[in-house]
Order: sequence, then C-alpha cells, then structure tokens
Amino acid sequence: MFELLKTDAHTKARLGRLTTAHGVVETPVFMPVGTQASVKALDPRELLEMGTQIILGNTYHLNIRPGLDIIRAAGGLHRFMNWEKPILTDSGGFQVFSLAKIRKIKTHGVEFRSHLDGSPLFLGPKEAMEIQRTLGSDIAMAFDECPPHDAPAKEQRLAVERTIRWAGECREQPRAEGQLVFGIVQGGSNAALREECAKALVPMEFDGYAIGGVSVGEPEPEMMKAVELTEPFLPAHKARYAMGLGTPAQMVELIARGVDMFDCVLPTRIARNGTAITRRGAFGLKGAAYKADFRPIEAGCECFACKLFTRAYLRHLLKANEILGLRMVSVHNSHMYLKLMADVRAAIAAGNFAEFHREFIASYTPSQKILSARKTANDER
Amino acid sequence: MFELLKTDAHTKARLGRLTTAHGVVETPVFMPVGTQASVKALDPRELLEMGTQIILGNTYHLNIRPGLDIIRAAGGLHRFMNWEKPILTDSGGFQVFSLAKIRKIKTHGVEFRSHLDGSPLFLGPKEAMEIQRTLGSDIAMAFDECPPHDAPAKEQRLAVERTIRWAGECREQPRAEGQLVFGIVQGGSNAALREECAKALVPMEFDGYAIGGVSVGEPEPEMMKAVELTEPFLPAHKARYAMGLGTPAQMVELIARGVDMFDCVLPTRIARNGTAITRRGAFGLKGAAYKADFRPIEAGCECFACKLFTRAYLRHLLKANEILGLRMVSVHNSHMYLKLMADVRAAIAAGNFAEFHREFIASYTPSQKILSARKTANDER
Repeated sequence: MFELLKTDAHTKARLGRLTTAHGVVETPVFMPVGTQASVKALDPRELLEMGTQIILGNTYHLNIRPGLDIIRAAGGLHRFMNWEKPILTDSGGFQVFSLAKIRKIKTHGVEFRSHLDGSPLFLGPKEAMEIQRTLGSDIAMAFDECPPHDAPAKEQRLAVERTIRWAGECREQPRAEGQLVFGIVQGGSNAALREECAKALVPMEFDGYAIGGVSVGEPEPEMMKAVELTEPFLPAHKARYAMGLGTPAQMVELIARGVDMFDCVLPTRIARNGTAITRRGAFGLKGAAYKADFRPIEAGCECFACKLFTRAYLRHLLKANEILGLRMVSVHNSHMYLKLMADVRAAIAAGNFAEFHREFIASYTPSQKILSARKTANDER
Repeated sequence: MFELLKTDAHTKARLGRLTTAHGVVETPVFMPVGTQASVKALDPRELLEMGTQIILGNTYHLNIRPGLDIIRAAGGLHRFMNWEKPILTDSGGFQVFSLAKIRKIKTHGVEFRSHLDGSPLFLGPKEAMEIQRTLGSDIAMAFDECPPHDAPAKEQRLAVERTIRWAGECREQPRAEGQLVFGIVQGGSNAALREECAKALVPMEFDGYAIGGVSVGEPEPEMMKAVELTEPFLPAHKARYAMGLGTPAQMVELIARGVDMFDCVLPTRIARNGTAITRRGAFGLKGAAYKADFRPIEAGCECFACKLFTRAYLRHLLKANEILGLRMVSVHNSHMYLKLMADVRAAIAAGNFAEFHREFIASYTPSQKILSARKTANDER
C-alpha cells in the first residue's frame, strides 16, 4: 500500500506513494482539512485545481452532525460531499480530549457530552472504527488518548498504556472495503514513552503510523523533539503522518526528519482573518500598505486568486466583509501548501532536497502571528 | 444603443439588445448586484458560468470604501474587480435617502454622514456623475431623490421636482468614454407625478429610463401600479429598468408590463439564510424535511450547485455554518434568476410569452418569507 520510492541521501526526507481505495497519494503530502465534510470556504473544483490529493474528515464532528444515518443513507462520506479522491478520517480521540465537555475515561473508551448540545456520547476504539467504517474513509485512524502537552508524567504514561490497548482493539474491528488503518504514537516529549508506544504498535502491523500528541499547544522545539524521538522506531516501509502540523517551515523541517503526511487548519483558518501565506512568510492583507498594491498576493503564484485578483482588491473585500475575500485567501493559502509539497517531492526526486530545505528555511520568515493562530485552531480539526 | 427586436403580440413584453462599451446585453435581463465590487459570495467565473451579462456596482458604497483614489489607480471598476463584461452603477441617490445618517437636502445635492464612520459627505448630480465617470461603468444612473413609499404628497412632489432638476444637471456632466446614462422616474404611486416626471425626462434624451421609487417597502400592488403609471410615458426605443426588483413572479409580471431590466439582492441575500428559489417557489433548505433528501435543490437545474450537491449535504453545510453552503445556494438562486430571463427571452422570440407567463405564475407559489426578506435588504443595494 505504501511504496518508499526514494530516501534522500543527506536528510531523512522520503519520496513515497500511498495507494488507497480512491486513488494514489504521492508523498510528502499536505491534506486540506474538511472537518465537517467541507474544506472551509472551498469547493471540490477549487480543491482539485490546486492539486489536492487527499482531504481529512472528522469522526467526532461528523458523528454528531449530520449523524451517521445521513451519511450511511448518502452512500458514505465521499458521495455525501461529492469528493471522489481519498479521504483520511481522524478517529475523534483528539476532539474527545480537547473539545468535548465533562469526560470520563473508561476501560473501553470515553464518556463525554457533545460540545454542541450537551447530549451524552461514548467513543472508544470499537465505536470510532465502526463510525469510520460507515464513513467509508480510505484511511481510518486508531482511537487514541491525546493528553495536553503539559500533562504530568503519570498522565502521559496512562495515556500511552490506553493508546496501546485501544490500538489493539481498533486493529481487530471490521473495516470498510479497502480501508487502511493507521496507528498513533503518543508519549509527549518523553523519550522512553515514545519508544515504548512505537515499539508496541509496530508489531500490530498498521498500514501507517501517525505521530500524535503534537500540535497540542507545545513550543516548537518540543514538537520537533517529539517527532525525533518517535521516528527512529517507525518502520521505513510504512507512511508516517505528523498530526495537525504545521507551518510551511515546520513541514519542510519535519520532512527532513522523515515525515510523509501532514494536515493543518492553519492555511484556511488564518485566511478567514485575512492572513496570506507565501514562500517568504505570512502577511496580513488588511494592512494599509496594501490599499493600492495592485500585485497578486504572491508573484509567480498560479492559484486562481493570484491569477485573477490584486492585493488591493482582496484587501477591500476583506475590509468590507465580502465572502469572496476570505474565499480567495483560502484558495491561495491552500494552494501554497500543496505547491510547496509538490516542489518538495520534485526536490527529493532530483536529489537536491537538502539544498531546497536550506534555501526555503533561509528565505522563510516564521511569523509569531501564525504560530499563535495554530494554538487556537484545534476546534476545527 | 438599444435595439427593440420584438414586441410581444399579447402583452407588453419586449425583446431587446443593449450595446455597451463592454459588450452586448440581451433583454429582458437580470443584473446580479455587486454593491461593494463583489456579487456576494460569488466569483467572476461562477458569474460567467451562470450566464451573467451585466452586474451592478454602487456609487455610494464604492465612494466610501475602497474610495475613488483606489479604483482610479486600479484603472476603473472593471479592472479593480476583474470583471470584463458590462457594469451598471447606481447613482447613490437611493442609499443617501435610505442608509445615510442625518441628511440635509440642498439645491445641488444632499449633505449626509457616512453610515460607516459618520464622516460628512456631499452627493449631488455633479458628484454622482463624476464618481461614475471614474468608476467607468457602462451605464451610469442619474442622481435622484427617492422618498419612502408612504411619504406625504407634498414630499413626493418635491422629490419629483428635484429629481427632474438634478436629471438635467446629470445630463450635462462629462461621462466616461462610451458610458450610457439612464434617467430615473420618481412619483410614488401618484399618476400625475409619474406622468409629469416621465414627460420631463424624456426630452432630455437619456439612453434609457429607470422606474425608481419601487422596492422601497411598498405593497406589491402599489409597486405594480407605479410601473403601470410610468411605462406608457417611456419611449419604446429605449431600455426600461425597474430598480431593486423583484421576486421571480414579480419580474415575469413586470416583463409583461414592458420592463426590460432588473436588479435585486434577493437571490443572494436569502441564500445566505439558507433559502433556495426554484421555478415553483422558495423553500428553506435548513428544514428537517431535507435531512436525508438526496435530490439536487431543483430537478433539471444545470447550475454548479445542483450538478454537484444534494439538499441533504447543503442542509448539513448550512446547519454547520460552513461557507460552502451559502456559496452554493447563492450560485443556485442567481442561476435560477438568470435562467428564468433566458427562458423569457426565448419565449418572447418564439411568440409564446403570454403562455409562458400564464404557466409560470400558475406554478409559482409566492412566498411571504422572501417578500418580507426583500424589505430589509436595502442596505445591500
């Protein structure tokens, strides 16, 4: 299912190909996030035009709204939302631990109340897999426990133990036809826990492995460390997915550390506040500096927004609360993420990723603005 | 500039062709409203795909935001918003009288305060024409006084007198190259005033004539009456435009009364609340009845939304506040209006408009919901 096509000579970057029931995904890949069966503000044509290979859906959210009966009646999530390419569904573990109210962890899952109407719900490995089977996603994620990054050591250990036990239970549940299942490694920034968790999951022979417990509010060095502590214990011939990450620079750094797959709400979320992302960093389009700036968001960019519109026009739309403004910045930012991954793949294939990596990091200015936006974006995953 | 191609044998319906600096407009025509240089939620590709021939822009709004200096620097409104087809600009008269705060009517225009920041502004025939010249619209509207529908007779008379005087002043202002200018007939539902106003404006030889003072909260019979009282005094060889109207049934009725052009915020405004318009009437897509309704909004509709999505999916998006939901209903509703006009033109050409009219009215159920939505929609014009 996953072919490792090439490993970079100077970094841990990998070129791969993941074959799913709805088509092939070339890695490294960025997956736009369609939490509620819609990548925010974008339509399927726009997603295809910008080169989207696979999108995310969310077990927790879709189970609450519209509800499984509707998606089952529609013939699955692909048909419900009219998306014919691959879909990966998050298991809902992250949302149960970050979003739901009043939760009680039991042996076989978590009792909690819906963040929408307070109704009592239960989600565990069995339920999460059953929901994902009904959604019919191409890649289902195991149900894990994702503690906060500053949880005490004892809580991190308990979470790893539950994550391992639940992973085993997920592995045994029935799947949709052709559905792949990925395991999730937890353990925070504790080296021993990361190793223990990875070593317990690898023999379960999941179709791919995710690094969870990142993008939970931790500082960037801690996030990098969590990945570095996990990666050596993951099998080379399976895809590796860093959940909920990241900024453009973070993705390039993580690819150099052996990660193949990413998802992040950042490009669409900050777009709705008028922040555009380019190869050189992010900037707020609402700034007075762009009032009469008749250049596109990013010179040379081939996205629909940059081909049609100027910064001055988009700034006007954003200031006037016109929906077309946030739509077009969402198009640009998502396109930027996808094009970056395409360029990374080309660089690995051509054997010059180390140079690409060095040059990208040198010319990209990390923005505190977008880093802090990420921390509040969890409700959208 | 306006060719009257055919007059219906049984009604006053007309088939026409209006030639402007940015292309030809086949009439009867519906003009989507792009008040702030954007037809709400839609992009130019979507507008072209649904058969848009001409859109509206607004003098009052664009003058306040982004401001004329920006649009002048962009090279005019067409280039600012990347719309290459014709644009008609409203003169701002309607907004000054309905939206602006603390106004004082003077001989040469109106002193008022911006509804955005309260800054003092002045708009009269000279200013309105100068702004429209800078916007570079294909059709500029004369600056008129538009009193409320329940204004006392004396106020209606004064408004007609000012409208006539200001029309004369508008007529003498310089225009953009190839720009047409339409006069606006006021007079409420007073037969003598309508006749007087029309008879004063016709010798001024405007390029077309609008019926103003409608869509200002009046009951539908009064609106029909205002049009019927005006139309006989308008020259047959000029286009007639009923401002701010209407529902699908109202447009078909008005076409039968000799009107050629319409604009209305209704299709996009009610779309954002989840109301879809079909040939048989309007319905609220958020209704529980559509939870598992996997049909398109309207059977046989060729719009982007109906080709891709089901009512169940769109209902879910609307309930979940996903932007794609209101986008797609905006696409459908606008397409419905434009397709209706295309069908009307075909019916007039084929000589069966009377039958089309009868059948349309018989199968269309007017909705109080959308009629009342219209009354609160004036801030978007």
